[in-house]
This record gives sequence, structure tokens and C-alpha cells, in this order.
Amino acid sequence: MLGAHGRMGRTVCEAVDAAPDLELVARLDAGDDVASLTSDAVDVAVDFTVPGATEANVHALVDAGIHAVVGTTGWTDESRTSVREHLGRAGGDVGVLLAPNFGLSAVLAMRFAAQAARYFESVEVIELHHPEKVDAPSGTARHTAAAIAAARAEAGLGAAPDATEAGWDARGADVDGVRVHAVRLRGLVAHEEILLGNPGEQLVIRQDSFDRASFMPGVLLGIREVVRRPGLTVGLENVLELG
Amino acid sequence: MLGAHGRMGRTVCEAVDAAPDLELVARLDAGDDVASLTSDAVDVAVDFTVPGATEANVHALVDAGIHAVVGTTGWTDESRTSVREHLGRAGGDVGVLLAPNFGLSAVLAMRFAAQAARYFESVEVIELHHPEKVDAPSGTARHTAAAIAAARAEAGLGAAPDATEAGWDARGADVDGVRVHAVRLRGLVAHEEILLGNPGEQLVIRQDSFDRASFMPGVLLGIREVVRRPGLTVGLENVLELG
Amino acid sequence: MLGAHGRMGRTVCEAVDAAPDLELVARLDAGDDVASLTSDAVDVAVDFTVPGATEANVHALVDAGIHAVVGTTGWTDESRTSVREHLGRAGGDVGVLLAPNFGLSAVLAMRFAAQAARYFESVEVIELHHPEKVDAPSGTARHTAAAIAAARAEAGLGAAPDATEAGWDARGADVDGVRVHAVRLRGLVAHEEILLGNPGEQLVIRQDSFDRASFMPGVLLGIREVVRRPGLTVGLENVLELG
Amino acid sequence: MLGAHGRMGRTVCEAVDAAPDLELVARLDAGDDVASLTSDAVDVAVDFTVPGATEANVHALVDAGIHAVVGTTGWTDESRTSVREHLGRAGGDVGVLLAPNFGLSAVLAMRFAAQAARYFESVEVIELHHPEKVDAPSGTARHTAAAIAAARAEAGLGAAPDATEAGWDARGADVDGVRVHAVRLRGLVAHEEILLGNPGEQLVIRQDSFDRASFMPGVLLGIREVVRRPGLTVGLENVLELG
Repeated sequence: MLGAHGRMGRTVCEAVDAAPDLELVARLDAGDDVASLTSDAVDVAVDFTVPGATEANVHALVDAGIHAVVGTTGWTDESRTSVREHLGRAGGDVGVLLAPNFGLSAVLAMRFAAQAARYFESVEVIELHHPEKVDAPSGTARHTAAAIAAARAEAGLGAAPDATEAGWDARGADVDGVRVHAVRLRGLVAHEEILLGNPGEQLVIRQDSFDRASFMPGVLLGIREVVRRPGLTVGLENVLELG
Repeated sequence: MLGAHGRMGRTVCEAVDAAPDLELVARLDAGDDVASLTSDAVDVAVDFTVPGATEANVHALVDAGIHAVVGTTGWTDESRTSVREHLGRAGGDVGVLLAPNFGLSAVLAMRFAAQAARYFESVEVIELHHPEKVDAPSGTARHTAAAIAAARAEAGLGAAPDATEAGWDARGADVDGVRVHAVRLRGLVAHEEILLGNPGEQLVIRQDSFDRASFMPGVLLGIREVVRRPGLTVGLENVLELG
Repeated sequence: MLGAHGRMGRTVCEAVDAAPDLELVARLDAGDDVASLTSDAVDVAVDFTVPGATEANVHALVDAGIHAVVGTTGWTDESRTSVREHLGRAGGDVGVLLAPNFGLSAVLAMRFAAQAARYFESVEVIELHHPEKVDAPSGTARHTAAAIAAARAEAGLGAAPDATEAGWDARGADVDGVRVHAVRLRGLVAHEEILLGNPGEQLVIRQDSFDRASFMPGVLLGIREVVRRPGLTVGLENVLELG
Repeated sequence: MLGAHGRMGRTVCEAVDAAPDLELVARLDAGDDVASLTSDAVDVAVDFTVPGATEANVHALVDAGIHAVVGTTGWTDESRTSVREHLGRAGGDVGVLLAPNFGLSAVLAMRFAAQAARYFESVEVIELHHPEKVDAPSGTARHTAAAIAAARAEAGLGAAPDATEAGWDARGADVDGVRVHAVRLRGLVAHEEILLGNPGEQLVIRQDSFDRASFMPGVLLGIREVVRRPGLTVGLENVLELG
């Protein structure tokens, strides 16, 4: 575990300890040398460090032949390309999984919404968070709306029907043509609801993240799956079996 | 029934016909003379006509000593005052019920939200309608938010917590300091959801109006209650027994 | 359209009339001869007739080289096999689509629930219908629970955690090990909610069918897709593109 | 604070410490002598102890002239009567508030459901809890259903419509004629949903208790209100101002 003393790191350590098929062999944090890890001792490293450290960590892990599961944010297109090229040069079967979101319910909600989008005339997104959140709408809601918009465009759908003439400030943000509403409420943590409508019917996909523990099933799944997926994988949805 | 040939009028006629304790004695529409009705033949008149006719109808009914249940919109403070004074001069036990909304679920949702508001740190309103609606947020949602805001002010509550720095367009309309979001979705009719939050808990009050039939229980209740309430009553909530 | 005078038939005729890419060329009902139809005049026949007639209709359509979209219930394994063999003997590119449910939201909810099931510790199903429904739980809810149970078994999941010692009558029906609850409420039509839970997170998939119009997008989709799918297809989900 | 070292006790101490208008003057637990408290030093005592101790505690507090807010369970009709008589004999203005549930959202949901019940043809209750819960349905859901049933009976309503012929095991438990469904799902804590239906409309009242912190606003409210309510008050709903 890299970033073992952070809040996510400690939670991951507990989850790995509790998993019968996994063994926690090392806890590193700032100041520790990732290059000291070897593929003899370590199969998979999990990185929840900081944006300034994660990229160097991953390159060191690839050099050592250790698979990596990365939840740290701050990755750019360039840094992803750099890892992809490094993996190509290394030529082995090392896998790296970069996942901005390890919440299974969030990842599945996003994917199902995108799959369903082409079959519905209307769609809107509501995200609900605790009131300390400074940005709106949430990154997850933006991603969801963008994926929905792409699916609708691909299917040749135009804009959803909307006769609004007055009161646009109540109609939410426009993300690629999809309306996204942000609710801030004491007591909530992180939630998303996608509403899809046709004449006489509605499909609602809702996900609730109540606490940090919710990311653990996704992290454990990533650890188990990354060893079977050489190269770079971006997004937890790409290690799910949804056939 | 005044306005008996309109969509609401026909639905009311059917509902009254189906009610074992009520009898439908007359159906009037544009061109018919309201003054022809007498309190010997008619106990209660229901008015779903048009803004240009409803005020004159009500005055004629008061003159005839007939109770009135009015769902027609367009009433101003002045026209309400005029009816109240007329009832005072008439001096009898005639009752007039003016109700902008006969949906029991909508009226109750609004009232419960206002009652609960003083006990929660956060509150937001989401209204959801069919995509042909031209204004946002809905009148019902505006009323609900205003009633919530008044209750919070009376209880000495300040603004709900909100750390939003960027993305205000996703945060809905501001109605007296309460955030109101409007969703437009094919398949929906008229729905409202009030979310109230405290640390570790949430209260959600939701109402769904699926079709015009939903107003009938409220209209029948109004007919049965108006005969026991001399003078002017504004709002169906004021004939409900919520003790 | 076969069964053109029934409630579903009339609604389908209206929907086809309103679709710019489709033309309604014949309306048949009881007494009309399906064998009079020819593939010169008719591309696709839609059958919403009765269990006693639908199987003969489909065989006649296959003989005539006309694609068929069938929403009539009452099909057995034997009658499906018979059609499959007939199509095989005929050897052309005729497609037959048998779909017990044309509601896109219902079909998608069922499929998403089955896909997600392997990733969650807990899952339960709630179906909600109008109070005139005589059977519980609904066929759709049974199918959903069975599909969920199959997916869990395939993934090696055991029973969902449940410490209930007293009060089993409140815990719903057991369908292949999945708890299914049936709500009956005036005002509702047909709705289903699947709740999936992991530590700290929940995924909810809900679908609402508000009226018969809700089946039309699915019927039109079936008409457009059946011409590209020779042989027998069972279930609308199998003509959806969910890649 | 009596029971200051228990989980609820510690949470209450933190909440009182954080409230600007309240001061925490003593923390007692098993072994400490309640009789050592005096009304000079203490205005209000909060009791989250154990069923075997709470009744004696309350009598000692009444003797000392100290108001009491009690969340401990195990109170019988007899023990409540005994406290009521003791308060009568004491003759002062001491108030005792016994509350089985300090969750404002739960208490309000129950009360609103009972108030609305007389105006709807159908009503059902769904409670949702974590899968470690051993009894079903929950005490809160039973109370809610009983209050709904009493309100319906008082208003002269008969049974809700229900044509169910087969599948009663899916229809939930019968509590005074009201159907109550219990869902057990990993990730959830304690939630209740009351669905009320009329032709064409639905009212849903839902409450979510996400963690123990959710009881604190109710406890603080009880502390502030009990000093103004001499005698015994049972139920937090009776100190709410819902006018």
C-alpha cells in the first residue's frame, strides 16, 4: 500500500487485511522508497498518494514488474500516455489500472445510464452532496452527462424536448446538452440519480455513496483483476464483467 | 357544475355522479345563467370556468345563498377581498372555498414541508414535470419554497449551509433563499419532492400527480366541507383536519 | 396489425401512423385471414391477438415470408421450438421477435439488475402495482429475481446476509433466494425497484410504467430491428444495442 | 449526562459541548450516584443508561427537582404511570420527556403519515435496515402502521383495496390491517417509507437515518423544551411545534 497512512490508505489496509485471498505485505508512505519493492515480494501495489507523487510511483512499479491499482487523482492525458508507452517498452504482462472512482454503484450507474440513453426521449441528471462541496456539478455527474450525450449523439438523437420559456435558472447546468442539477444537503454524502423518460414510462438509476467504505469492494476488485490485464486500463468499468 | 363542458368540468361531473352522498343537479357552461340557480335546488356549486367569469359567478352564488367551491385561477387579492366583503354583508352561513390546487398529495406535501422546515438545517425543492411546461419552477414549487422560507425565518434559522464556489447554474433557482430545481422529462406529469437534511438524517416528502383524476378527492372533500365553513376559505389545506 | 381492434392493437396502429419511417398497410382482427397477407405488401406484422390465435398467425406469416413482432402471451417452450424449426425449414431471412414485455424501462431495469447483481452483497426487489392486480409478485419481478439469482450463482455468491429471526411475513416472497416485495396502491400502474447494497453504498434501479403508451417505443424498436434478425429472437433485450 | 460512557452518551456529550446555549456540567455512568446531583448545579439530565437503571434515575431526578430527557428503552405502562404520579405529588414544574425515538425525521414521518392517512384510499409502509437486524418489521414501522390504522378507523375508512388472490407471502406483514414490508440490505442503516395512494396521485414520506448523529438534533430539542413542559411527556412529537 502506497499512501498507507492517509485516510483512504488506512481503509484499504483494513479491507485487504480482511480479505481471505489477499495479503498485505508492505505499507509505505511519504519518505519511503517505492524502488525498494520487488516483484518477488509484491504482486500488486495500490496507490492512494498525492498528485505530485503518483506518476513517479507508477513508473517505478512498472520497472519493478509490479501491477498497480491507482486511485490518486491528477492524471493528465500526457501522464497516461507516458505510462502506456513505458508498459509497451517493458514488454511484460504488468497491468496498471487507473480509476478516478472506485465506487461500484457510481461506476455502474454511469455505465447503465450511458447504455440506456439511446432508448429514451428525455434524460436529466441530479447529483446530491453534503453542503461542504465547493464545486457543482460534481465530476461524476459531469462524466455521466457527457457519456449520455455521446450515446445520444451516436444514436442520432437530437435535444431532449423542453418547452421552457422562463425560469432557466431552475433548469440546471447544461453539460453537453444534458441538464444537470446539484443539490447540497446536510446529512448526505455523495449520490447521483439519472432520470430517463419516454411516453408513459420512466427509468431511474440512483446510486448512494454513504461513506469511504463504499470504495473498498471496487479497490479489491481492481487488485484481483489488474493481474489479468496487461497494459494500461483506465476506469473501473473496464474490469467489470457485464456481458 | 359551472364549466361543465370543460375537461376539468366533465371529470368533476363523473366524480360527483360516482359519489354516493352527492347528487349532480345542474351542468352549466358558457352562455348559461348562473342567476337561474336557487338554493332550494342547489347546495353547492363547483366553478371550473375561466378567469374572466369566475368572480361574477361567485358573487351571483353568494346572492343566491349557494355555497361555492372554486378551482378557476386568476383570483387577485382585490377579488378575494371583494368576495369576503360580500359574504360579510350577506350575513348568512354561505361558504366559499377558493383553492388553487385540489391535489391532496400536493397540498399535504406543501404543508408538511412547511411544518418540518424549522427542524432541519438544509432544505431544497425539486419539481418534475412533462416537457411541454413553459415556466420554471412550477407555481406549486414556488409556493412550497416560500412557505418553507417563511417557516425558517419565523424559527430564526439562517441560510442553509452551502459552500458552493463554482457552478451556480447547477444549483437551481433561488426562491426566498430556498434552492428549487426543475426537471422536464417525457413521461412525467406533475411531481414535487422536498428534501430536508440534518446531520446523519434526511426527510423526503414527495408527491406525484399522474393525471387529472388526482384532483377529484380534493374537489369532493371541498364540496363536503364548504357547507360547514361560512365565509371565505383560501386553500384546500384549510379544510383538512390534521390535528 | 393483427388484433387491430384490441386496446393494444389500436395503440400500436396510432404509434405506427405517427412514425415517419413506418407505414400501416393493413389492420386485421378476429375473422380476417392472415394468409391473405403477402410479403409484397407487408414487411412486418405485429401480433397482439389472443393466446389461441397467435401461434397459427406466426406460422402463416413465416410461410408468407413476413417478419413478425409478437406481444401476445401464452407461448410455451414447445410452441417456440415449433416456430424455430419452421424458420429453419423455410431457410430465408425471416425474423420473428417474441417479447413478453415491450416496456423499454422494464426490460432495461431487469437487464441492468442482472448485470450488477454479481457485484453486490445484498439485493432485494420491490414491485408496486394498482390494487386490482390478483397475483403477487408480478411476473416481471419474478423474472428479475430469477435473473439476479442466476447471476449471483454464476459469480459464486452465496445468500445475501440476513439476520432475521422473527417477522418473516414482513420479509417478502423468496424467489430463488431473492426477497421480492409486492406493494398494491391506488394511483399506481406498474413499477419495479431493485435495490443492491454493499458496505457504504447502494445502487437502485427503478422503472415506472404509467400507461399503455409506454410499450410503443419498444414495439416500434421491435419492428425496425426484426427485419435485420433472421430466425427467432425471444425478449426485447436481445434487440437492444447495449455495447 | 447519565450513561455518559456509552456510545449514545458520548455522542450526546459532544453535541451538548458543541451547542452554544447549553453547558455540560456532569458525566455520570454506572456506579455514580444520581442522588448527588442538585437542581442548583443541573437544569436538565439526559438518561441513556440501561432498562434496569433508568426508572430509578428518573425518580431520583424528580426528587432533586431536575428535568429529565430519557432515551433509554424498556419503559412499561406501569413505570410511566409511576413517574406521572410522582410528578403529581412533587407538585413543582419539573418536566420529564420519555422518547423512544429522537430522530426528527423518523418522528415527523410517523406523524405526517398518520395525519395524511385519512385522506388516501391506499397506504403501505416499507422499512429498510442493515442486514444485522434480527426483528421485522421494525418497531418504528409497527408504530407508524398502528398510527395510520387508528387514523383511518377514526375517519371511517375501511380496508385499503387489494385484489390479491395468490402470493400473499410477497404482500408483507399485516399490522392492524396495514401492509408493512421489511427490506434488509448491506449499506443501509435505518430508513422508512410510507406510500399513500389515491386515484391518479401518490404521496410518499421517506426518512433516512444514516448514523447515530441523527438523534442529536432531537436530543438537544428535548433538552431545550423539557424545561417548559411540567409533567410527563411521552414522544418527541409532543414537543414539536407543528401549528
